[in-house]
Order: sequence, then structure tokens, then C-alpha cells
Amino acid sequence: MKDINILAGATSSFGELWGVSPRKLVSDVTAEALKESGIKRHEIEAIFVGNMLSSSLGSQDHLGAFFSEELGLDVPAVKIEAACASGGMAVHTACLAVLSGQYETVLVVGVEKMTDHKPEEVASALMAAGTDGEREAGATFPTLYALIARAHMAKYATTELQMAAVSVKNHFHASLNSHAQFKNPITEEMVLKSPVVASPLKILDCSPITDGAASLILSRRKSGGKNIAITASEAATDSLGLAQRESLTSLKAAAEAAKKAYRSAGILPNDINVAEVHDCFSIAEIIAMEDLSFFTKGTAAKNIASGMTRLGGKGIIVNTSGGLKAAGHPVGATGVKQVVEILQQLKGISGAKQVSGAKIGLTHNVGGSGATAVVHILKK
Amino acid sequence: MKDINILAGATSSFGELWGVSPRKLVSDVTAEALKESGIKRHEIEAIFVGNMLSSSLGSQDHLGAFFSEELGLDVPAVKIEAACASGGMAVHTACLAVLSGQYETVLVVGVEKMTDHKPEEVASALMAAGTDGEREAGATFPTLYALIARAHMAKYATTELQMAAVSVKNHFHASLNSHAQFKNPITEEMVLKSPVVASPLKILDCSPITDGAASLILSRRKSGGKNIAITASEAATDSLGLAQRESLTSLKAAAEAAKKAYRSAGILPNDINVAEVHDCFSIAEIIAMEDLSFFTKGTAAKNIASGMTRLGGKGIIVNTSGGLKAAGHPVGATGVKQVVEILQQLKGISGAKQVSGAKIGLTHNVGGSGATAVVHILKK
Repeated sequence: MKDINILAGATSSFGELWGVSPRKLVSDVTAEALKESGIKRHEIEAIFVGNMLSSSLGSQDHLGAFFSEELGLDVPAVKIEAACASGGMAVHTACLAVLSGQYETVLVVGVEKMTDHKPEEVASALMAAGTDGEREAGATFPTLYALIARAHMAKYATTELQMAAVSVKNHFHASLNSHAQFKNPITEEMVLKSPVVASPLKILDCSPITDGAASLILSRRKSGGKNIAITASEAATDSLGLAQRESLTSLKAAAEAAKKAYRSAGILPNDINVAEVHDCFSIAEIIAMEDLSFFTKGTAAKNIASGMTRLGGKGIIVNTSGGLKAAGHPVGATGVKQVVEILQQLKGISGAKQVSGAKIGLTHNVGGSGATAVVHILKK
Repeated sequence: MKDINILAGATSSFGELWGVSPRKLVSDVTAEALKESGIKRHEIEAIFVGNMLSSSLGSQDHLGAFFSEELGLDVPAVKIEAACASGGMAVHTACLAVLSGQYETVLVVGVEKMTDHKPEEVASALMAAGTDGEREAGATFPTLYALIARAHMAKYATTELQMAAVSVKNHFHASLNSHAQFKNPITEEMVLKSPVVASPLKILDCSPITDGAASLILSRRKSGGKNIAITASEAATDSLGLAQRESLTSLKAAAEAAKKAYRSAGILPNDINVAEVHDCFSIAEIIAMEDLSFFTKGTAAKNIASGMTRLGGKGIIVNTSGGLKAAGHPVGATGVKQVVEILQQLKGISGAKQVSGAKIGLTHNVGGSGATAVVHILKK
């Protein structure tokens, strides 16, 4: 794959943004990215919108044209949906658009407005990413990831304390991120004593319901300043439902997408300095680290708990934004925001959460309980 | 743009398919296309699903992975939504994917299941493509197109009889299409005497609510048999709402997309032999013929009424499938089915509805009341 240059990226604050509309969120993150990129608005030639829930929760479809008008762009625009991987798939599709030669410079926006609704409405809307069977059984995503956690615990002796360490690390990172939803540091004890959602997952093992938006400007042209490029953009799918999988302790789609991405970028997993992974639940980050070959199977939990992947650690530093857990998880925005976080790391503008000397970064965005996975590799 | 080869295409029957699931519809049209293409299932490298309403009416998101699993393909997959242009935009995005070089051969499926719901639920779900203001005013798409019709009548003296002629032509064409929803020929008198939906539009000026699916296999590789290629794939957007438009008598996005497509293909409008245009209402086909520069402004209605665009006519033959009006309008499938219809025309396998000597064809797919438009040009 030819490199795709990232001219700019921005995220909104993530959280309960009750006074802010999706229009305003997208308008602000686009204005910020345009300013950073130094390009003119009319140089944007197409828009790819990552969003899952605007139809079921917002009663607004046709988001491509909706934002094209709102942004005063008047260019081809489309909504990309792949459940919680909508943002990552929007980036992937935008990469294809730039590679196609039909568009030189494109805008990706990811956006979700979730907190204006009752939690049970949101849970129900999210389960549209699952199977009929899972819904009929009354499963929600915490239930499904609890099954995954139980399987991982049984096979690799992973502990609830090790899972708690994921949340503790990500809250610490979020405490350094002014845009994060939860900036409060927490302890393992707080996680273990927090209310159970779906055993063994406690509320502090779970990512929250969040409003937010993120934007990226991708181009064949190089950036005027330090050029950061996407050097691999790969996706893969697996069965929608857990019952159809061979294994619960790995997400096959994520492992596949990662393998393709390393091959495409011509690098090895350990060449990565910094990564944003899809920690929708604490167990998901542990499995992600194994699927991405950062650690061998069954060893991620103890390595994370040892502090290797925490800022200052000697391993690959993971989820400096705070991850989905603490920065928040506005579904369609998440995969876009992950790329923005890595962009800023490679530019060296991440301030207190900067990973020193970061040259190569990775993002890992997952849809549903693993039916879609998208991996991007960025380099400076 | 480099040509993109169409290895195969198929459509389901369109209509009230109460006994058939979306899974079955997509599975059948994909099997048919695979058989026709002569390629193996594992040669498909990605899937682009055109769909608008599965979230709001079907409570199923994540359709990319859903169909990837159902079809036993296990490849990157994504849902593309752009209201009633979802199918056309899925084809456009798939073209970008093939042009990108990342995927050699991809599958496009368009699908919609609409008739299992109460008409008012469907009307409400469809209005998610409009603006808040339009919804608050109680507008539905017939209302919006009635305003467009009134404006066209006022400016160009277009008559209700001329609009009726569009439906009569399309029902005649549908009578030759075994997959069409309405195969019954009708007369101008029947249209004029049919119940008023939103004056001046009568029920027989309006496209129906429909279930159906369509598929295409696109590739960099040429087909073994007669090769048909997409030689231009262009999209454009306009304001979501009518109130923000400069003119009601033309869809700016459609005119723009057409202009770009003619330039990209290096042809003139009159080089086209056969076209499928978005006749969601009879007035929409009249305006489409003008936006596509097939006729000068204000002359389409009388030319259509004269029979020029009907099978056997001396002009560009339009909507041989029966169009949205009579073949049916399963929203996400429509833009894909249009390309399949033109593919079959250029292959010369359209039987009783064959346009003799057709060499170049065009499709015109519109979202909402014109906020998105997609134009494809095919040649043999």
C-alpha cells in the first residue's frame, strides 16, 4: 500500500455533552483539523462519516449529505457503519478513496451522541450489532465480554485483579488527557469493589456511554510540517455471534487484520512504540495485546499488570488517551479518535502523555464482540 | 478513472416478499452473481452493503459482518448509507476500493426489507433522510416531491397528464420484467383518477414500498465473456432540505454528478443509449432527464409523453426495468439494481425489454429529496 498522509486530526472533548449537538461537535472538530492542516475548506473532496446510532437513537439518516451541508463543503459524502468499528472502517474506506486516485484530499469524521437517551435504550440500540440469538437470550455486550473473560480466566488463569490493572492504567493516562471523560485516577481495589455488571466484569471494567466526535484529513499530498502517514490500513471480519466462534480467548478478525497490517507496513509487532487498542472492557485490552502479537497468548495480563504498557513502562505504551475505558467511547468516533491520538504521539505534541521517541504507532478498533476489526499503522 | 470491470450482477424479485428474510435475499443474489461470474467465492476480497433501514426497521446493524458471515466469505465488509442513494453509493465506494489496488475483486450487495412494517412506520423511517424542519412540518417524501412538481408545473407548464405518462411507460416496461413488483400495464386515465397522495401526485405517480436485493461483482480483472465496465462513477451532494435550495426544478447534485461522469467517461449525454433513472415520483424522472442533459430544461415532460424514451422510441430509452415506480424501490437495493439492469442491457440479455444495439448506459440514483446523487456510466 502507498502511504496516505495525515494532514491533520482533532477530537472534541468526550463525555456527557448534553448542551452540544452532533452538528456542533462535527463542525468544531472539522474546523480545528482544517486550521491545523493549513488547507482551504474547498480542497476537501469527499467526506466519510463514521457513525452507528444516529438512525436508531437520533432518527437522522443520510449523515453524509447532512454534514456535507453543515460544513459548507458540498462534496460526495457517505456514512460508514460497522458497529463499534464504524470509525475505523470510515478511516479504512477513506484510505481506499485516496489510494483510488479519484479523490486527493478527504475528510473523515466520526461522531456519536449517546448520553441523551436512557441507558436501556442505548444498550438495546448497541445490541443491533449482535445476533438474533444473543438478543433473544437477553445478552448485552457486558454479558458477551463476561463470557470472553471467563473463558480467558479458565484457559490462562487471568485474574480479576489483572483486569482491574487495565482500567487503573487507562484512568491514569486519562488523567493526563484534557479531552477525556473520566480524568479521575482509580485503584485496583476500587475496580474490584465496584458494582458487578456481568460477572466477572465490574462497572470499572466497562467503557462508558459517551458523546463525542473526531476528525482526520487524509491526502495524497504531504503535510507541510512533520509528515505522519498511514502505512497500513487493514480490516477483517468474523462471525457476528460468539456461539459461532472456534475460540473465545482471541478475536480472530483482530489477529487477521493485524497480521495483514504488519505485512503491508513491512514491520514486526515490536517495531510499534505506541498503540490505541479497543478496550471496551478491561478483558478486551488483554486479548487485544495478544491478538496484536505484542505478547504471546496468556501472558498479556501479567505484563500489563506489571506496568510495562503504562507511560514510562519499557514495553509498547498502550491507550495513552485513556482508551475507551477512561477517555470514553462515542462509538462512531472511537476509531477516528484512536488515529488522532497516535498522530499526536508521532508528532510529539502529546504533552504530559507523550511517549518519548515514538516513531511507529498502531490503532485497533473492534465492532460488536469481534465480528469486525480494523488495524491502522502510522509512521513518521 | 480506470475502467472497473463488472464480472456479474443479479437481482431478486422485487415486491412484498413476506416469507423471505434479508439473509435469504442476499444469499440468493450473491449465489446467482457468483455463478454467472465464474469466479470462486474465496476470490471475493471485500463486501460493500448498501442499506438504509435495517437499523430503524430491522433492529440489525453491523450488516457488513452480518452478510460476510452469512455468505461464508469472512472478508472486510462495511455498510454504506446515503438514504435512497445507499445502493449507488455502495457501488461508488466499491469502485474506489477496486481502483485503490487494495482489493482486486469485491462484492456489492444492496438490500432492503420494508413491507413487514406499517406504512406509517416506513414513512417515518424514510423521513430520517430529511431535515428536522421538514419532519416538524409533517412533511413526507410525497409532500416534498409534490412541492417540486408544483414548482416545475409553474415554471415549465408541465402537466399532470405528462407526469402520468412517466408511470404508464414504466409500468409497460415492468410488464416485460419478470422481477418487477407491478407488472400490470396502466393508462394515463388510471393515473389521473388514482387517489391523491400529495397533490398533484397521485398514488400511481409514486414508487411503492418494496422488499428486494441486488448484487454486483466488480474487479480489476476482465470478465471471461463479453466485458462490461464502469467507466465513470461520480457522486455529489446538495442541502438536505428543500428550503435551502436555490431551485426546486432541478436537483443540483444530480446535474453535478452527471457533468463529472460525462467528463470522466469522455462522452456526451447523447452518446447514452439506455438509462435507469431515479423515478421515486413521476416528476423525478422528468427532472432527471433534464439534470442528465438528455433534454433541455422544460422539454423533458413533453418528450417523455411523446414516447421517445419508451422501448422502441427514438431517444435514450429510460427505465427498462420499470424504474422505481413499477419494478419497485427497495431503498438500499435500488442503486445496485440499476447497474444490474444496464449491465444486462449492454450484454444484450434483456429479452423482451432489450434496447437494440445498446453500447453505453447510465444510472442515476438519488438520496432524500436530492441531497445525494450518484451517476454511473457503463460501456461494453
